[in-house]
Amino acid sequence: MMGMLKSILFAFAISITLIIGGCWHPLSENAKEQKAEPLFPKGDKITNNNFSGTAWLQMLVLNDSTYNTSIGNVTFEPRARTNWHKHPGGQILLVTEGKGYYQEKGKPAQRIQKGDVVKIPPDTEHWHGAAPDNELVHIAISLNTDKGGAIWLQPVTDEEYDQLIKNRN
Amino acid sequence: MMGMLKSILFAFAISITLIIGGCWHPLSENAKEQKAEPLFPKGDKITNNNFSGTAWLQMLVLNDSTYNTSIGNVTFEPRARTNWHKHPGGQILLVTEGKGYYQEKGKPAQRIQKGDVVKIPPDTEHWHGAAPDNELVHIAISLNTDKGGAIWLQPVTDEEYDQLIKNRN
Repeated sequence: MMGMLKSILFAFAISITLIIGGCWHPLSENAKEQKAEPLFPKGDKITNNNFSGTAWLQMLVLNDSTYNTSIGNVTFEPRARTNWHKHPGGQILLVTEGKGYYQEKGKPAQRIQKGDVVKIPPDTEHWHGAAPDNELVHIAISLNTDKGGAIWLQPVTDEEYDQLIKNRN
Repeated sequence: MMGMLKSILFAFAISITLIIGGCWHPLSENAKEQKAEPLFPKGDKITNNNFSGTAWLQMLVLNDSTYNTSIGNVTFEPRARTNWHKHPGGQILLVTEGKGYYQEKGKPAQRIQKGDVVKIPPDTEHWHGAAPDNELVHIAISLNTDKGGAIWLQPVTDEEYDQLIKNRN
């Protein structure tokens, strides 16, 4: 009887070893994979007054007269957003991570998320930024830059942000 | 003694249940996460003669006179590539997945991979495509399209592809 008990205790010990060695290890691997490298570097923290909250910019293509474009990767922490602004040559946003908002003046804010393409017409006042509880990462492609760079306007205040999101589409 | 044996058997059964219920489940979750959704849809298989091998195109922005650009998401299966071609207004590639090659006529092929930005000057003969053993996914941003669309030239033959890659940078 004691021999059988020893066998069972041995089997029990083996099963615990399997749980710790074979099972917990893949779980930690899993955690590593969930924290995947971003597509493009986060770049530098934006320190100018054209943004509210914490946002990061990595330029991918600097403006020149050959390509007539500038392309930047922008990371917004939750609640971070641009000021109201407009682009004389138009801009396209390709959302690569997270969730946020895009709003044209006089229209309700639209929810945007990973995989969305946003076309911002020339000379159209608008803002974009992260949701209250999500970061937002997008590639911003400024087009026809021979028509001029972004024209920056007033900030989207905290009260305005909260109100606009409440009235979103 | 038999009571203790029952307790041990019960504990053993519980541990097996934990292995199956609590451990195998995260492993299959893990497998699902590894096969992550692509950033943009793969779109339609390209059936024209401007490509060799199997490639897919999802248009993100159709060309028009407002934005003066067209943006497409291109997925190349291993060995798939464009013909030689050129863009009157230039093109930018943003590589979002995999590994491949970019080559300008008269220069060695360059390896490109996820996170790379490729600037293709206007009127410059070139090709791009996947590595022999990797797929390649890139966003292709055609600029200044008022200067005209892509001018398609001769295919990159299998012999040329193998030779160009052997002589790569």
